[in-house]
Amino acid sequence: MRIIGIDPGFALMGYGIVDMQGNKFQAVDYGSLATPAGMDMPSRLKMLYDDLTAKIAEFKPQAASIEELFFNQNITTAIFVAQARGVAILACANAGIPVYEYTPMQIKQALVGYGKAEKKQMQQMTKLLLGLKEVPKPDDTADALAAAICHGNSAGEPKPLRVRKGI
Amino acid sequence: MRIIGIDPGFALMGYGIVDMQGNKFQAVDYGSLATPAGMDMPSRLKMLYDDLTAKIAEFKPQAASIEELFFNQNITTAIFVAQARGVAILACANAGIPVYEYTPMQIKQALVGYGKAEKKQMQQMTKLLLGLKEVPKPDDTADALAAAICHGNSAGEPKPLRVRKGI
Repeated sequence: MRIIGIDPGFALMGYGIVDMQGNKFQAVDYGSLATPAGMDMPSRLKMLYDDLTAKIAEFKPQAASIEELFFNQNITTAIFVAQARGVAILACANAGIPVYEYTPMQIKQALVGYGKAEKKQMQQMTKLLLGLKEVPKPDDTADALAAAICHGNSAGEPKPLRVRKGI
Repeated sequence: MRIIGIDPGFALMGYGIVDMQGNKFQAVDYGSLATPAGMDMPSRLKMLYDDLTAKIAEFKPQAASIEELFFNQNITTAIFVAQARGVAILACANAGIPVYEYTPMQIKQALVGYGKAEKKQMQQMTKLLLGLKEVPKPDDTADALAAAICHGNSAGEPKPLRVRKGI
């Protein structure tokens, strides 16, 4: 199974595509899609959408895994990240790929068996599981690969990306 | 000038298309794009994107006007609304339409000359300016029309949709 993990952002959007065979993972392609700081937001969203769509067309993942968004203290940034996240989900939907969502705790649990693992621990495990020589940089890329591995490890019981009842 | 106003949401997305000639406005088409409550979020975002893209293709507005998003107390809903907003902005960008953003206060100021006007006052003025027999329902539709009129009235000095410096 080929999985794309996505770490949404509007300045940098991490992506990591992995193949899973049995319980072995192999990195296919990974990196961060960047948009220029001075560019207007509609153009940035369009650039992210086009670039992600191109990656999906090139590598044809069968499922997408994306981290659940939590709000930090910077509300303005959170709005922009959520907008970019919507565009990333749309790129997957328009390509016919199912999208699965995991909490940061689920991703940590799936990778190192401990829901409160530290970032450094997570990155070392990502490197180890994928047989990479170095920890992928920047953090967005490593996070995207971790999300992809999480879906592979949890494929039995993914959390479907639905709205809560009553909303 | 033909303007589309958009009131973003994931359950209901209001849109209002108006023609402006001189200082006169005429409603071209308006309504709310709805998605079923039980549908998964990727499919809802895709439906909103497809429906909005179809409206833009049919009515060919030259500019889009969208209200700035403010967070209320329901953070989960806010994330979903921001995702839908990203998808709406993308639909405009992919159609080559410039997107302008206004605060609720700017929209009130542009319609009734008072930045703290009440919703009912706004809706009556929208009805009056467009020569409609009744206030458009639901509220999302009226808000979208108000955003479109606001851009028409403020076209000299729109707020471009850019991220703040340093983000």
